[in-house]
Amino acid sequence: MAQFELTEKNRVQRVPKRGAYDSKTIYEIIGDALIGHVGFVIDDQPFVIPTLIARQGDQILLHGATSSRLMRHIQSGGDLSIAVTHIDGLVLARSVFHHSINYRSAVLFGRGEFINERRAKLEALRQFTERLVPGRWDDARQPNEVELKATAVAAVTIDLASAKVRTGPPSDEEDDYSLPVWAGVLPMRQVYEDAIPDDRLDPDLEIPGYLQKLIEAG
Amino acid sequence: MAQFELTEKNRVQRVPKRGAYDSKTIYEIIGDALIGHVGFVIDDQPFVIPTLIARQGDQILLHGATSSRLMRHIQSGGDLSIAVTHIDGLVLARSVFHHSINYRSAVLFGRGEFINERRAKLEALRQFTERLVPGRWDDARQPNEVELKATAVAAVTIDLASAKVRTGPPSDEEDDYSLPVWAGVLPMRQVYEDAIPDDRLDPDLEIPGYLQKLIEAG
Repeated sequence: MAQFELTEKNRVQRVPKRGAYDSKTIYEIIGDALIGHVGFVIDDQPFVIPTLIARQGDQILLHGATSSRLMRHIQSGGDLSIAVTHIDGLVLARSVFHHSINYRSAVLFGRGEFINERRAKLEALRQFTERLVPGRWDDARQPNEVELKATAVAAVTIDLASAKVRTGPPSDEEDDYSLPVWAGVLPMRQVYEDAIPDDRLDPDLEIPGYLQKLIEAG
Repeated sequence: MAQFELTEKNRVQRVPKRGAYDSKTIYEIIGDALIGHVGFVIDDQPFVIPTLIARQGDQILLHGATSSRLMRHIQSGGDLSIAVTHIDGLVLARSVFHHSINYRSAVLFGRGEFINERRAKLEALRQFTERLVPGRWDDARQPNEVELKATAVAAVTIDLASAKVRTGPPSDEEDDYSLPVWAGVLPMRQVYEDAIPDDRLDPDLEIPGYLQKLIEAG
């Protein structure tokens, strides 16, 4: 199992038993996410912005307008930190102190490079569309040359990474287990609701099978 | 309506019409979120970590182990950027280029200070618990002195902030509206599933009303 190097930068400091450094765990967390939060530094000032992400091998793909602050920072070779987080549930312990959430998070470090070669750029854009809605790329109109130029795509090579995962029931102090306080987990999940057709949609156009499948998979 | 100052740091650069700088919009986005992603800089290196957040007036409350990297950074007076993001739906346009997501995000800038005074610290911790599960604080065992000392609570004064919001249907190129491609929005939302009682829970203890209410409110 491929492991990321463990350094002071990516070491999980708090509750180390929840930490993981293998690419399988980390890539599954990324694979389940639509967005990541990207951190970067300009003039000593930290910025964090949410953005769509995709993974291609050991790289994270980001895209945006060529003129955006993040894309200009990437082009200048700046360091990035990318966090991906899922909340899976609320953990209700008998004591306030042991309340927690069940979560899966990954924090990545690296730098990016623009993908400029036409075919590679199209393939990266296909990844973004397909991860939102598998099957969509071949159905929608493909990007034209103007649209391709307006979008910058960056590939961030993951130098260091860690995952942190909490699962399962609350951990209470032994003395607290006898308290008459309800304890357990309240699971959370993200679901799709019924699709809303565009007002200008031809009423004869039915929801495509790939979209129906996504909704039903929930 | 209270407005945050508009500077180059917090100005929404891409699609400015989606930007907002009033505290009402920004605080509603924060109020709907359990976690934020906090960015900070140590030795020129950006770090982004997910953490529970709460709001108290014009301050964001963060908590963690006193020895954690983030808490030590806050204590040293370091700059923070905090992003809060909700994904509300997938936006399927007729062209790949106009695919998007509906989202509400807020990005904040500021610095934090520890809350050390006992009563203020307890009140801050109450906010964290109550925002996870309203009604929980009075039901669970309150923090003892050891637990209070182990937890650091920081209040981050929001110096600058912006919101960015996308809602509604796709915007397609006029020529594309006649394409036979399904277009519209696939709404997403986070839901609670059935509560899982702790294995060691007294079977006579029923789910409390405040928790049932939270589950039903979905």
